[in-house]
Amino acid sequence: MRDVFTFFEPTHVLFGCGVLGDLHKQKMPGEKALLVTSGGRSVITNGYLDRTEKELAAAGVKFVLFNKVEANPVKSTVEEGAKLARENNCDFVVALGGGSVLDAGKIMAMFAPQPSDDLWDYAGGMTGLNRNPEREPLPWIAIPTTAGTGSEADANGVVTNPQTNEKIGLGRMDSLFAKIAVVDPELTVSVPPRFTAYQGFDALFHSLECHLSVNACAFSDMVTRTAIENVGKYLARAVRDGSDMEARTGMSFASMLGGYAMISSSCIGEHALEHAMSAYYPALPHGAGLIMISMAYYRHFVSLHCADETFVDMAKYLGKADADEPEDFLEALLSLQKACGVDSLKMSDYGIRKEDAEKMADNAIATTQRLLKFDPVPLTRDECIRIYEDSWK
Amino acid sequence: MRDVFTFFEPTHVLFGCGVLGDLHKQKMPGEKALLVTSGGRSVITNGYLDRTEKELAAAGVKFVLFNKVEANPVKSTVEEGAKLARENNCDFVVALGGGSVLDAGKIMAMFAPQPSDDLWDYAGGMTGLNRNPEREPLPWIAIPTTAGTGSEADANGVVTNPQTNEKIGLGRMDSLFAKIAVVDPELTVSVPPRFTAYQGFDALFHSLECHLSVNACAFSDMVTRTAIENVGKYLARAVRDGSDMEARTGMSFASMLGGYAMISSSCIGEHALEHAMSAYYPALPHGAGLIMISMAYYRHFVSLHCADETFVDMAKYLGKADADEPEDFLEALLSLQKACGVDSLKMSDYGIRKEDAEKMADNAIATTQRLLKFDPVPLTRDECIRIYEDSWK
Repeated sequence: MRDVFTFFEPTHVLFGCGVLGDLHKQKMPGEKALLVTSGGRSVITNGYLDRTEKELAAAGVKFVLFNKVEANPVKSTVEEGAKLARENNCDFVVALGGGSVLDAGKIMAMFAPQPSDDLWDYAGGMTGLNRNPEREPLPWIAIPTTAGTGSEADANGVVTNPQTNEKIGLGRMDSLFAKIAVVDPELTVSVPPRFTAYQGFDALFHSLECHLSVNACAFSDMVTRTAIENVGKYLARAVRDGSDMEARTGMSFASMLGGYAMISSSCIGEHALEHAMSAYYPALPHGAGLIMISMAYYRHFVSLHCADETFVDMAKYLGKADADEPEDFLEALLSLQKACGVDSLKMSDYGIRKEDAEKMADNAIATTQRLLKFDPVPLTRDECIRIYEDSWK
Repeated sequence: MRDVFTFFEPTHVLFGCGVLGDLHKQKMPGEKALLVTSGGRSVITNGYLDRTEKELAAAGVKFVLFNKVEANPVKSTVEEGAKLARENNCDFVVALGGGSVLDAGKIMAMFAPQPSDDLWDYAGGMTGLNRNPEREPLPWIAIPTTAGTGSEADANGVVTNPQTNEKIGLGRMDSLFAKIAVVDPELTVSVPPRFTAYQGFDALFHSLECHLSVNACAFSDMVTRTAIENVGKYLARAVRDGSDMEARTGMSFASMLGGYAMISSSCIGEHALEHAMSAYYPALPHGAGLIMISMAYYRHFVSLHCADETFVDMAKYLGKADADEPEDFLEALLSLQKACGVDSLKMSDYGIRKEDAEKMADNAIATTQRLLKFDPVPLTRDECIRIYEDSWK
């Protein structure tokens, strides 16, 4: 827990059911947008793309559509989108979609103005050149259609380089926060139960990790408590009945707060370990990967008794009002996974082998050391391996 | 309670003991500052002014000193400071002091670039011209030396026009948030117990009012809960022992959160009623005025049973864990006032007469109608008068 901290989050947040309809009333940060969405059809069939296009038109801005972002977006996709923005003189980006789209759009906004065709010039990890962007990023607008990543409220985007098996965060610049975040829970209504659960647990883990992190501070504690409470109260409801707007609203709020948490504290080892899994197995949804390792990961720290009070608090926030020992947190977490039908996810269903543990541990250490050092007690390589192995089914 | 809300707070916050020493490492928003402080000697004797000047010098910026801000700053003071900034081509403002200094510095930053010598051209209230500023405000840096107003985190400054007995908020522009807020609890150590209490209750009332306001939303509820809890936990400790740094830190945090609360919800009638008191009796400290009317004010709404759950929640936040009826809030509030030695403040000690009630009620309605309409149930003129009369001692 830090006594001294900084906080900066300059995004104009519009929050609540129906706020997409207010987008055209906002001051647009440019004249021509690169409109970034996923390659899937849901933004079309649900009418979100059409509504967003009409909002942009009503605001008097032009746009070019880039609709090729995949789950766990890869380097070449971001490069292709940025190239389209350059060729069309787009002066801002609008990202409409889930976390993958928001992250990809955000990093396109960073990369488009730069004098390089290789995104990895600006990446860290094992093979990136770690160059500081020479030019200011384009401004961007976030319109999340899922409740999970909190990407609308942070300045970081995760991109995968399949050539090098690196899945890492890029960005982290003050100027890369969204100018406007349109957080409209109505856009999440169409997410099916299984993905509602995966994404909701991603939001939960952002706040649990930020609460447990050695980077936690009074500001992040305020945010993470509220986010965890909202997940405890609403996630199972949103999974059971996707049209429960109170539950969807609570989850969109929790997800956005995850972004606030990540910039005032930081994620820790759990996210590092998962990124290494989906770096090798890109078909694995990020949230599902987190759920798979979560029990073993948190059990490790509970058994160390390095943060007893924090675990008791987190159990209470999740709804276990009578919690009085750290193990109660494990019970509350498992109970939520059961309530959401995601307590039996298997790594083997995604092709992950038990013997991958060593390779994934090395990958996590090599690419995301940054997060591993913020655990309450830093994990050794052997402990990383054991968490994967204990989690394997 | 609003389901749809916006949130925007773009200030770079530096928070914690000793952060004043980090000021020189920040990117300064200009080359020459108007350094605004109070007319009192405390910023000199405590070394805060000297330290701030050294930070500015280390950051390579020049400054001109304006050290004439009084408690409840008046129109002419703000005009004089803005004139000094113009004459010296200052391109930003640094405000070092309590709420009066921060509010005055903030409004100087707004007013200095404008093509008018009359601040009231940009004021509302009864007699202001309500003009929109024609030019962008100067950027400004907030360095609070008290824990009360939260002025470092909002875009509003309260100024008094003694000619017209108007004490009203000016500003409220997105571009008027501080660029940097240096919230260093060490700078509040020198505040004597009585003023620690007045200022702490101001911070408390910001969050209580914002929690009770019809403008409350999920974001403000998160902020106000944490702020109220911090006041409940730390204010009496800070009053008893000014060198208790944990308590001072909790109060500085609660005060800053009051700013976040006011921009995501809004103050209500209590602040409108107090402004009318100190508009006529400028020697009355704002926090003391609030304390004087607080019991009658909240009792009015408790007796209406218009927000029973909210009052029970606020009682719990203040530390009354077993609260289960709205009256428990009144008990918790009175108990905190007793613990801080401010339960017997008398209006008559500041020259206020019982028969002023009518005049003050009319003033509140005429100047600050804006806040009065956000009460859970809007107060009638008679109810305003009754609250003053019931509070009179």
